[in-house]
Amino acid sequence: MKKDLVNIKDLSNDEILKLFDIADEMSRAVEKKERLDLCKNNILATLFYEASTRTRLSFESAMFRLGGSVLGFSSTEGSSVSKGETLADTIRTVANYSDVIAIRHPNEGSARVASQYSSVPVINGGDGGHQHPTQTLLDLYTILKEKGSLSSLTILISGDLKFGRTTHSLAISLARFGAKMCFASPPGLEMPEYILRTLREEFNNFPQEGTNIRDFIHQVDAIYVTRVQRERLGEMEYLKYRDAYVLSSEVMKSAKHETIVLHPLPRVNEISRDVDKDPRALYFKQAFNGVPIRMALIATLLGKV
Amino acid sequence: MKKDLVNIKDLSNDEILKLFDIADEMSRAVEKKERLDLCKNNILATLFYEASTRTRLSFESAMFRLGGSVLGFSSTEGSSVSKGETLADTIRTVANYSDVIAIRHPNEGSARVASQYSSVPVINGGDGGHQHPTQTLLDLYTILKEKGSLSSLTILISGDLKFGRTTHSLAISLARFGAKMCFASPPGLEMPEYILRTLREEFNNFPQEGTNIRDFIHQVDAIYVTRVQRERLGEMEYLKYRDAYVLSSEVMKSAKHETIVLHPLPRVNEISRDVDKDPRALYFKQAFNGVPIRMALIATLLGKV
Amino acid sequence: MKKDLVNIKDLSNDEILKLFDIADEMSRAVEKKERLDLCKNNILATLFYEASTRTRLSFESAMFRLGGSVLGFSSTEGSSVSKGETLADTIRTVANYSDVIAIRHPNEGSARVASQYSSVPVINGGDGGHQHPTQTLLDLYTILKEKGSLSSLTILISGDLKFGRTTHSLAISLARFGAKMCFASPPGLEMPEYILRTLREEFNNFPQEGTNIRDFIHQVDAIYVTRVQRERLGEMEYLKYRDAYVLSSEVMKSAKHETIVLHPLPRVNEISRDVDKDPRALYFKQAFNGVPIRMALIATLLGKV
Repeated sequence: MKKDLVNIKDLSNDEILKLFDIADEMSRAVEKKERLDLCKNNILATLFYEASTRTRLSFESAMFRLGGSVLGFSSTEGSSVSKGETLADTIRTVANYSDVIAIRHPNEGSARVASQYSSVPVINGGDGGHQHPTQTLLDLYTILKEKGSLSSLTILISGDLKFGRTTHSLAISLARFGAKMCFASPPGLEMPEYILRTLREEFNNFPQEGTNIRDFIHQVDAIYVTRVQRERLGEMEYLKYRDAYVLSSEVMKSAKHETIVLHPLPRVNEISRDVDKDPRALYFKQAFNGVPIRMALIATLLGKV
Repeated sequence: MKKDLVNIKDLSNDEILKLFDIADEMSRAVEKKERLDLCKNNILATLFYEASTRTRLSFESAMFRLGGSVLGFSSTEGSSVSKGETLADTIRTVANYSDVIAIRHPNEGSARVASQYSSVPVINGGDGGHQHPTQTLLDLYTILKEKGSLSSLTILISGDLKFGRTTHSLAISLARFGAKMCFASPPGLEMPEYILRTLREEFNNFPQEGTNIRDFIHQVDAIYVTRVQRERLGEMEYLKYRDAYVLSSEVMKSAKHETIVLHPLPRVNEISRDVDKDPRALYFKQAFNGVPIRMALIATLLGKV
Repeated sequence: MKKDLVNIKDLSNDEILKLFDIADEMSRAVEKKERLDLCKNNILATLFYEASTRTRLSFESAMFRLGGSVLGFSSTEGSSVSKGETLADTIRTVANYSDVIAIRHPNEGSARVASQYSSVPVINGGDGGHQHPTQTLLDLYTILKEKGSLSSLTILISGDLKFGRTTHSLAISLARFGAKMCFASPPGLEMPEYILRTLREEFNNFPQEGTNIRDFIHQVDAIYVTRVQRERLGEMEYLKYRDAYVLSSEVMKSAKHETIVLHPLPRVNEISRDVDKDPRALYFKQAFNGVPIRMALIATLLGKV
């Protein structure tokens, strides 16, 4: 495996599956409330130049479950770090205080820059709208764990597929493992052509496309719901299309008995509260999976497994 | 004991006394600078939606003394968590990253909501002006530890008893253990009638009331001082009553030799600096007691004692 | 050794050298990625009333490498602590939650006040422009470690020597160990007369003074570069003198083969990026040395070595 995880492409399919095996072990330990001591000598630095409480807390939880320590900063303070100092200098300094760095930064490419200057492994915790590989890993892991396989599945991805860029890496990663896909998005917010072209040309993958989750819900094994932001569409269009992307318990009646529902969270109203009680609703379990996945990743990058 | 501590009423008198026994043990360990490993496998999440450095640091210190880890956020960042996400969703997510949650939130009732959605124990670290049960516990504990009993005591509570709502749970809790009380407050800031009625009807407890701490100081075993905020009274009234609520070493001359002085802190000027050297001034020791009390509570809720 | 480290003068030369011996051991442990358990029972409180991410993270890293825990606040929240509460009260409270306190505060003398009210050791992490003794220690340690001795060396200190007050403690500390010095600064930003007088009268030390680093670069064993702030000089003067204080790889050609380059960081442009690859550029190693130095200091103050 490479020194860093900046882009999901940094990992081969085999490396991803190996991480998932390790995550299974980590998951068992977390469920038994055991603290592993694999990384007890190690420090994780969480450099969050913009707020992302969920991602940051998940990384911290992972490191604590491995017996390690965490230092760093969250958004508000990040600005003071960068005051007049280049990212390269900050990284070279923090690499002296820690053994692995998780970075979140508003600028695309910043995690790659960090990895080039860091003497310790760097994990991209989101660089602008570009890449968020640990989210992609936990999404894949959740589907695989629940359904046993990716190649035999059909997965519906819904919401704003143009600007919701985490869906881009997810789509390509699902294609890497041979999954079939359906895309549901409002007109104007469809999956970009360059992603569709990559799916076709590199993976011979031809997703179905539509404008309403109801068109696909009955035939899919998993539904991956994301937001449609009111600002993207304008008020008239938003009101017109809103209901086509809200997963309610009414809509869930059309889904198969074993169809699972995922969401990267936080949700606003694109999944109704009444779905929460549906045993097929797995988005909080998906959030839990972020911990063993990040444990597996940190332990692997530190050479502890 | 219940899964959560949201309201001091969640605890029976026996449960409170049991916690105090455990706190005694914890206190001895802290004084010997021993780290217990009772909670070494556990993570405390401190979700502070408003700043309360003292309470947060005290919870963190307690968890570290138990060998555990801490993650979370303090005020400034809390706003970003809640951006578009319900408290229920945040709690369900964070419960996946931690084993016990301490929450501070400006809205009354928020800790109860949190406890309903959390799969792990929730401790109320203050919800608006409503409840702050760990403060009440450490107040009771300090008095009991110093004086040996609550039922034979008379305790003066002074300051703004109308809006200073931590005095409300304290008064009711003291009544539960049979203590007698005196209340000193400026006119208009008296203890509310519904609290007095509860004291009378549920506990057959009839506090003396007055407008100057000097009226009671000579007869009480403990003085619990709180602030009178200038804004509450208006400038003229404030100046008129201010001196009636300032505990100075001059006023302390009227107190009994063994009368103890408590304050939830931070203080502004309602206890003069010259009282700090008085051996009866126990407010910093009271702050120390917040650590063993929270240790006892966390360890109990996690089933470790 | 005293209970606290507020001013570099609190340490005798022997105490400094003893700390350096301990730092050598700590450094070896850190390089082997070993966590020491010397301070596993202890809590460090980092009270940062103004942002200083580098200093804070370095303290935290040191405490984690010693097996200890860390609580505290960074700038944004510090303001809420002090809301209406005196520094003395905050310190007396936090001393109940921790075993050693590192404080950073914008006001000169605040660390001394803190040390007077704290029942646990206090380390000054910078009080305004006054003192920053752990920075001075790591500067001295880096020079001594790299060059083997201080008394036989000549050290160039460049930049704004009037307002860049960390250079003041450094200069006096170097004189304490018998080093010779050269000072290069723009006119108007020279080392203050009271520092020069101390050097002359207390240490019989007569630094050379000039206005361009090129005047001294060929003859010195170490160059300690600091910033010249544009605002201090006015635009015309700044442009006139800027190049005289920028250390470039071109300027480094005049330096001796074994001359080392130091900088307290963060740098802006006073050391060109092309110097980073020069093996004589040791400023990131200097940053690393902040960890073992602070480990040595914390462990010593806690009586663990």
